[in-house]
Formats: sequence, C-alpha cells, structure tokens
Amino acid sequence: MFKYELIKKDTKSKARLGKITTPHGEIETPIFMPVGTQATVKSMTPEELKEIKAQIILSNTYHLYLRPGHELVKEAGGLHKFMNWDKPILTDCGGFQIFSLGPLRKIEEDGVTFKSHLDGSSHFISPEFDMEIQNALGADIIMAFDECAPYPCDYDYAKASTELTTRWARRCKDAHKNTENQALFGIVQGNMYKDLREKSAKDLIDMDFPGYAIGGLSVGEPSELMYEMLDFTVPLLPENKPRYNMGVGSPDYLIESVYYGIDMCDCVLPTRIARNGTALTSSGKVVVRNAEYAHDFTVLDPECDCYTCRNYTKAYIRHLVKAGEILGARLLTIHNLRFLIHLMENIRESIKNDTFMEFRQEFYRKYYKKDIS
Amino acid sequence: MFKYELIKKDTKSKARLGKITTPHGEIETPIFMPVGTQATVKSMTPEELKEIKAQIILSNTYHLYLRPGHELVKEAGGLHKFMNWDKPILTDCGGFQIFSLGPLRKIEEDGVTFKSHLDGSSHFISPEFDMEIQNALGADIIMAFDECAPYPCDYDYAKASTELTTRWARRCKDAHKNTENQALFGIVQGNMYKDLREKSAKDLIDMDFPGYAIGGLSVGEPSELMYEMLDFTVPLLPENKPRYNMGVGSPDYLIESVYYGIDMCDCVLPTRIARNGTALTSSGKVVVRNAEYAHDFTVLDPECDCYTCRNYTKAYIRHLVKAGEILGARLLTIHNLRFLIHLMENIRESIKNDTFMEFRQEFYRKYYKKDIS
Repeated sequence: MFKYELIKKDTKSKARLGKITTPHGEIETPIFMPVGTQATVKSMTPEELKEIKAQIILSNTYHLYLRPGHELVKEAGGLHKFMNWDKPILTDCGGFQIFSLGPLRKIEEDGVTFKSHLDGSSHFISPEFDMEIQNALGADIIMAFDECAPYPCDYDYAKASTELTTRWARRCKDAHKNTENQALFGIVQGNMYKDLREKSAKDLIDMDFPGYAIGGLSVGEPSELMYEMLDFTVPLLPENKPRYNMGVGSPDYLIESVYYGIDMCDCVLPTRIARNGTALTSSGKVVVRNAEYAHDFTVLDPECDCYTCRNYTKAYIRHLVKAGEILGARLLTIHNLRFLIHLMENIRESIKNDTFMEFRQEFYRKYYKKDIS
Repeated sequence: MFKYELIKKDTKSKARLGKITTPHGEIETPIFMPVGTQATVKSMTPEELKEIKAQIILSNTYHLYLRPGHELVKEAGGLHKFMNWDKPILTDCGGFQIFSLGPLRKIEEDGVTFKSHLDGSSHFISPEFDMEIQNALGADIIMAFDECAPYPCDYDYAKASTELTTRWARRCKDAHKNTENQALFGIVQGNMYKDLREKSAKDLIDMDFPGYAIGGLSVGEPSELMYEMLDFTVPLLPENKPRYNMGVGSPDYLIESVYYGIDMCDCVLPTRIARNGTALTSSGKVVVRNAEYAHDFTVLDPECDCYTCRNYTKAYIRHLVKAGEILGARLLTIHNLRFLIHLMENIRESIKNDTFMEFRQEFYRKYYKKDIS
C-alpha cells in the first residue's frame, strides 16, 4: 500500500519530482509537511489545512504517548479519526524530543529512560515499545526509534550513537506489526562524520526500508556543514525510495534540501514564528508585530493566495498580535504554512519545466536579496 | 437607515418577535450578540461567525480607543472594513469597562478620568469624546456614555449616578455626528431602585432615541432581583423601539430577558467559558476538560448543528483543552456561540408558533432539570 514513484530528475541539480502513495492518498514530492505535534497543527482545522493544500502532516510519538496516550488514540480509531484528518500522516519516533530532554533522559542499549516534561513522571521507551505506540497511532509513515546526537559531538560518541541507532532500527523493523498500512522509514545518523553517515546509510539500506530519513542535521551546525552532509549522504540512498530531511523549514533549507535530492521536509518554524507575529513572504521575513506596520493597510504578501492575504491588512494582523488575540496566530499560521507549501509547489513546477536552478536563484534574490552560487 | 419593526407579540408573556434594519443588514429579534471586544470575536473568523448565523456582533469603545486607537480604525475605513465583517456591529460605550476599573477611574460631571489597564497611562473620556470615538469606529448601533453603578449601591449614589447618565445621554445625542448611519441607543440606569429606573426611562424617552438599553443589571444582584427590575422597567419603554439587556448570556438570563420583553442580549460568557474548557449543551453545562470525558467518543451535543458537533468527539476536544491547544478554544467557542444563537432561533420560532411558554418550560427541564413557574 506504500509506493514511491520517481517521476523526473533535474539535469542541473539533484532535485527530483516524485509521488508517494499511502493508504490515505498520494503525496507529490518534494513536499513540506506541517507539524501537528499534539494531534493538531497549532490553531488550524483539517479543512483549513486542505485549503492551503497540505498533503501530509506530522505528529509526534513522544507527545502523544504522554498525552492523551496512544491507547486512547487507538481506542478512538487511530490518529486520523481522533483528529478528523483523512489524508496522510507521518509520526516522528520521538527520538529527537527525548534527546532534547537533556539531563532528564538516560540512553542505554535496551532503550531510553526519561522524565516527562509535563509532570516529571518516569518512562521507558524501547524500539519495540516505540513501534507499539506508532502502530497504535496508525500513521501512514512511521519512523524508526533513533538517538539524535548533539552538535558538536566527538567522534567516539557519534560512532557509538550511530551504531546504537542502527541496532535499534533493526529491532524496530522486527517489532513493526502493521507493515501493510504503515511504512517504516529508517533514519540515517552519523553526526557530521562522513564515514559514519556512509556506514549508517549502508547498514539501513541492507535492511531495506521503504524510505530513508536523514536525522541529526539542523541541530546547530553552520548551514554550509549541513549542505556538505546532504551533498555527501543523499547520493548514498537508493533512488527508488523517498528521502526525508528531518526538521528543516526555513526557505533556504527547503530549497537546498531539494537541490541535494531530498523529497520531504518538516519543521515547526512556520507555525512557531506565526505565533510570535512573524510572516514569511515572497520578499522576505515580515515581523508584522513591529510598529512600522501599525498603519500598513496592505496585505502580508501580494503574491500569496491564502485566506489571510485575500482578506486582512498588516495593520489588522498587527493589532491582533499586539492584543494577544488567537485570530492573529491563526491568520499568520495559515499564511506561513501556505507560503512554504506554495514554495514547494513552485519548486515542483520548476523541476517539471527544467527551470529549478533559475527558480532557486530568483528566490534567493527576492527573499534573501543575494545571489546563490 | 435604522428601523425597528415589531412583528408579533406573544400572548402569554411579554416576548416579542421583531426585525431591526441597519446599514449593514437586517437583524431578526430576539437576538444574542457575540462579543468581539478587541475587533475580533475571540478565536473566530467572520466566515465562521456567519456559519453559526451570527447576525450582529459587539465591539468595545474602551478597548478599541486604547488599542489600536479609533483614529487608526477610522483610517482603515471603519471597524467593519478593519476586521473584515460586513454585517451589523454594535459598539458598547465603554462605560461598563471604565466602571470596572474601580480605583483607577474618577467620575466627574464633565467625564471620566482613568488609567489604562494596558500601560497605566492617563486618559479622559467625556460623552462628546465617546461619540467622537464611536463615530470613528462606525458601528451600526452605538451606545450613549453612561455610568454603571455597582451593586449593592446606596440610594443617594444611585440617584446622582442615574441623573449624571441622563445628562450625559443628552450630551451624547447632541454630539453624535453620524445619525444617518449610526443609531444611538440610550441606556436606562437606576440600579435596583424602581423610581430611579422610571425617571431614567422617562427622561431618555423624552430625548427620543432609536433604541433603549437597560444597563446596570447582571452586576452581582440575585437573579430574582434582575427579573423584578426587568419586569418593572421594560414596560416603561416604547413598543416601537428595540430593547437591549446589556451583558447577559446564560441560557436562563436570555430566556427570561425575552420573557420580559427584551429584544437584544450580549455577553462574553459563552466565549470565555469556551476558553476554559466548558460547553453549553442542550442537556446542560459540560465541563469537557474533566477526566470523565477522556474516553468519551460522542459529540458535545447531539442536538447541535455546529462544525464542532459535526466533526469532533469530547475525548479529542478534552485532549486539546488539556494540551492548551488553540483549536480546543476554537471548537468550544464555535459550539457555545452557536448554542446561544440557536437557542434564540428556537425562541423566535416558538414565539411565531405561540409556544414560547412551552418552549421555556421544556428548556428549563432539559437544561436545568427543574420546572419554571
């Protein structure tokens, strides 16, 4: 029930056009996936997500396990039914969130012991239990339980961590109970060490996952280093499987991910900065909460087709943000997500038309006011 | 451009069916008006308000004067355009909000000096300036600047306060610059003293306002006392003008207001309790954040036709509320407002069918599990 079809490869970059088929519908790639950490893309309804052309959303194993609990979601008929979203869902394995707990977690061969960020209660997640949780949630794409090493990280730690992730990936594959309806992706780790990335990719490919993610990037390293790792790692992955760069969401990271051959990206950035009063627009970031927009009766982005840009002025949105009104967060969330989804639509179109490199150059000039080599 | 048409009087109560015509459309009465204090009904879009059949919304002079400022709203083309709502709006005069500031305000013959709840800055609003603000906002119905006396209140203070409100009403009438497009309502005060209510009503009626509000009720007095004051005051008002009971929004207060001859009500209650995780339903209040609803996969109210009740379970809404998710506030706000608007639709239907008294009895039995005399 899960399939990746490579439709076209760009001739001047590693960008590629594809289509993923899941039990809840098709996904055109490359794609940006909005994040709905707690079984809701913050502030939005499923209908609004469809209106901005979201094809797939993310949710989070760690968060849903803690609240409301995977058993409850299963009882509700699975995550799709629970949250009233009938299109594809991907659940992250929770490795990154547990890694982010810092001193509140202890990593051992068998799994991770950690304290809940909600109430300090103790929990243990093994690769097997992670699969049990993700099987209960029932997302179309699920992720193998991994350790996401920090940056910077010494070689020995990175090596041990990567090898642990590989052993866990095997255990996940063995424990995964619903292979028919849920595609399990392996996560390539290796920190910023090419030999570790190579070994990780090779070992995971030997296990033959239906898709591969690149984890442990965008964790604080310079963007040049991330690009270098993408440039090295992506070509190691099989061409006939989708490739997912985890946790990137700024326009440049999306474009460069595609440039290096990535098919899927996700990030909380567009929704998080929306709630802080910042918009992504075709001419760059607009901090609409700033005083300069108080009397600006134009829309956020005249090139945008979203509900917000069809109906509201910067002055009104700024008022809502300053007044702490929920509608402000809503309008900016709609716009920011639509902006990134629209960006990916334009990227797909440019690959189709053999103009991806020109599109990329043009975008950098307009958004970042600079050229890209 | 403003007109009230009395369509039908109930034979067994003072309930009445009517229609108000404003520059932004017609309003069937009796009606509940959602409150959009800061130029937004908290969490909702104008389209969603239309979907739940909101006919008119309220906004607030005090709040909009402080933020974003009435001059800015005027510059935007008025409140309708600023907030993208093309149906009728009523602006409250701000008297109640300033009265609520307590020691932060000083009332004198000329007007009120007060400190902003936002930044402590000093401001002065006179009846004339209040009209200037409301004229700038451009609502279809505007309210005369009044003092809302507290409860309990001694007779001498109530008398002086009521007389001041009457003098201010005259000054508002004289200062109101846009009589063609904005109907100015007088506010009957008098606290819980019938002779003061009578005098206030008489003096205001002499000034011939296009509508009359009853202010200073639902300020902490027992409900029986409020009903007694309504029973006494409403018949003093002319039959050919709309009557507005300010600040009531619980189902019993709405039904009793209609019973005593009121045409319009407003309150923040349905939206406020929504954000705290409480729903109004046809079988009574449901505190959906309570643990008992964790595994309840039924809808909030099977008799409700709102978006929330068509799509979501109590278990999911509870999860959203517990997780502090904006969508929880949204879903409950939609439902609670629809519940009260629907209640008023049913009330209008019952008046039409000469069954208002039966409807009232039946509602009390189902919602409050008690009979009403």
